[in-house]
Amino acid sequence: MKKIAIIGFGVVGSGVYEIIRRNKDILTKKAGEEIDVKKILDIRDFSAHEEAHLFTKDFNDLVNDGEIDIVVETMGGIKFAYDYTKALLEKGKSVVTSNKELVAAHGDEFFRIAKENNVRYLYEASVGGGIPIIRPLACDASANDIVEVSGILNGTTNYILTKMFKENDSFESALKTAQELGYAEKDPTADVDGIDASRKIAILMSLVTGKKFDCSLMHTEGIRNITAEDVTYAAAIGCTIKLIGCGYTKDGKVNASVEPMLIPENCPLAGVWDVFNGVMVTGNMVDSLMFYGRGAGKLPTASAVVGDVIDIVRNSSYNPYYSWGECDESAVIPYDEVTARFFVRIKEEQKEKVKEIFGDTEIIKGISDYGFVTAKMSVKELNCGIEKIGGAVSRMRLYR
Amino acid sequence: MKKIAIIGFGVVGSGVYEIIRRNKDILTKKAGEEIDVKKILDIRDFSAHEEAHLFTKDFNDLVNDGEIDIVVETMGGIKFAYDYTKALLEKGKSVVTSNKELVAAHGDEFFRIAKENNVRYLYEASVGGGIPIIRPLACDASANDIVEVSGILNGTTNYILTKMFKENDSFESALKTAQELGYAEKDPTADVDGIDASRKIAILMSLVTGKKFDCSLMHTEGIRNITAEDVTYAAAIGCTIKLIGCGYTKDGKVNASVEPMLIPENCPLAGVWDVFNGVMVTGNMVDSLMFYGRGAGKLPTASAVVGDVIDIVRNSSYNPYYSWGECDESAVIPYDEVTARFFVRIKEEQKEKVKEIFGDTEIIKGISDYGFVTAKMSVKELNCGIEKIGGAVSRMRLYR
Repeated sequence: MKKIAIIGFGVVGSGVYEIIRRNKDILTKKAGEEIDVKKILDIRDFSAHEEAHLFTKDFNDLVNDGEIDIVVETMGGIKFAYDYTKALLEKGKSVVTSNKELVAAHGDEFFRIAKENNVRYLYEASVGGGIPIIRPLACDASANDIVEVSGILNGTTNYILTKMFKENDSFESALKTAQELGYAEKDPTADVDGIDASRKIAILMSLVTGKKFDCSLMHTEGIRNITAEDVTYAAAIGCTIKLIGCGYTKDGKVNASVEPMLIPENCPLAGVWDVFNGVMVTGNMVDSLMFYGRGAGKLPTASAVVGDVIDIVRNSSYNPYYSWGECDESAVIPYDEVTARFFVRIKEEQKEKVKEIFGDTEIIKGISDYGFVTAKMSVKELNCGIEKIGGAVSRMRLYR
Repeated sequence: MKKIAIIGFGVVGSGVYEIIRRNKDILTKKAGEEIDVKKILDIRDFSAHEEAHLFTKDFNDLVNDGEIDIVVETMGGIKFAYDYTKALLEKGKSVVTSNKELVAAHGDEFFRIAKENNVRYLYEASVGGGIPIIRPLACDASANDIVEVSGILNGTTNYILTKMFKENDSFESALKTAQELGYAEKDPTADVDGIDASRKIAILMSLVTGKKFDCSLMHTEGIRNITAEDVTYAAAIGCTIKLIGCGYTKDGKVNASVEPMLIPENCPLAGVWDVFNGVMVTGNMVDSLMFYGRGAGKLPTASAVVGDVIDIVRNSSYNPYYSWGECDESAVIPYDEVTARFFVRIKEEQKEKVKEIFGDTEIIKGISDYGFVTAKMSVKELNCGIEKIGGAVSRMRLYR
């Protein structure tokens, strides 16, 4: 019998509890022994819960319980979660988390402590909810030099963009619907401004390179400025718009960014709609793989957490293949050097100048202005060109 | 330094060699120690190979080499591969294979021998080429009761169906092109008649249930009889046609089948074209996941083989979570009891009878005949209904 504790009985934490209760026999079979919840830490009142005796408000009840080997941290945020995780690992307990903010910010430190104490710190649920992506990168694709990871990592923004594309909704109206349905928070900043996605692509690129990719070094752009006219332009060039977390490695260096991108309709990511997530992984041997599923939600996310718990029951020793070390800023490729094709919107009077500066490109008429696709160039070259034509209404990167 | 041997230097075997040479540093980092090829067994002449000294025609050179801990079997077929694999496992060597025929037919026996000798028998490359699907089922989705696995598991037939759908090719012409491009063998039976896919879905359902699913118990139907008119009907009801290996579990029982199915256009599997594969996994907690990528080809398949080799270098002890036991015929749901909706093609004079027997369903006019979609019913009920209306031109199962 393996006894675990849960910290934070919110959406995901209560999902973990539910899976352990509902799939008990399956878990016993898959883990090789029974898994039971011994304690749940939450500051709220759960005295009416059917297992009220499991709840405590005192962290010491968990950290000092010698019977508890594995702790699930699903409270989110940094402040308390950081202190708790550190104390638990130092006490020789393995920790499983869904807390992307914490993993992105402090994963490197926790892996070091986990190694010192020969325990594990696992975080499959922190990226892509129920979609397996951490273990495939750490194990399945291990024969490859991973050259690119890119994907739709935020369900809220994908839902909003779906409404804008499929129902011609405006951003504001789609956001309102998302909030009504509980897909978006009252303060939607973390989702719509790309912060949530930046944490997730930071985690993936940290795992790929073995060095922390600090979110503060990342170009991060959300979807607030996307308009109905952008949707029309996208359709005109056979694309859809998705918020993409994208990372690549080149000559031992790495870049990661979050920004809305134009995705060609024949790309598998273009077929990822609503709250679903999709992650493309490109290795130098396997070519491109895609992992698709529910990137959020109570039971899908909890499914990934419990999968990690089972992994630890099977083998609780520190495993270096899920870890990374400190950030190496000198290995980060500046966003200015990222090369891509771009869609640039301009005013009518700039049309002639575009041909002069960007060469012979087709200029498309939109509703209120004009747009064109550039050749492949760096962000720096793009900005330089845009300056020469006297500015642009907007620009958007093309995916591949 | 971990020394391995390769049996069968064909497409996949030579790909394994190539990855070990080209990604040497990456492999050393990922496995924790260097991996090198010590011997290659192949009956053909490789005296002109740049490392000709590695080749042998004598199996005893491998099985009696105490330095070789891991052997890659990429020769295919049953006869020799069975004897070799058995002898190697009995000698305490782990074996990694891409040989779906052998895994489907004798996996249960090999897992038993591997357990007795505390070594591993891994087979990620046997299903879906480079796509991770075995490890996700064994590990990532372990918190779930897996209720369904279904997918496009054969690249050759998917290529043929793509040509038929996108270029209005006939089956014969598309097959010819596939053969010219090397996607289909001279004798295409194993691919086009669904035999290859049946081995793959048998492996997946054996892993899911823990009991061998014998291919001989499976309804297996290929794509030879699909015509341009079927393509037209499919489009008329908003579907595409894919060869689907499909397995599900219900009340501790299991069914698996291979047959062409009508896939609604909004299903992620409908977007899997050309030689790509896609596998959907549905768990009772995580809902549906899809895994997508190159289901065949030298380096993608070899990437999965080498991933398994790295896994064994990391941990060479027998692991029960990748294994299954003997077949239990009594737990197999007969194909007759499978329930689905079906598309049935009929002659004009049967139209009135259809309404009588199948109820009020819309009858669509095709080119030479008529068709309709049934309500959800069992195969048995379908056959009974078809008999009552005096036979049918053809019938096809709808996916979900």
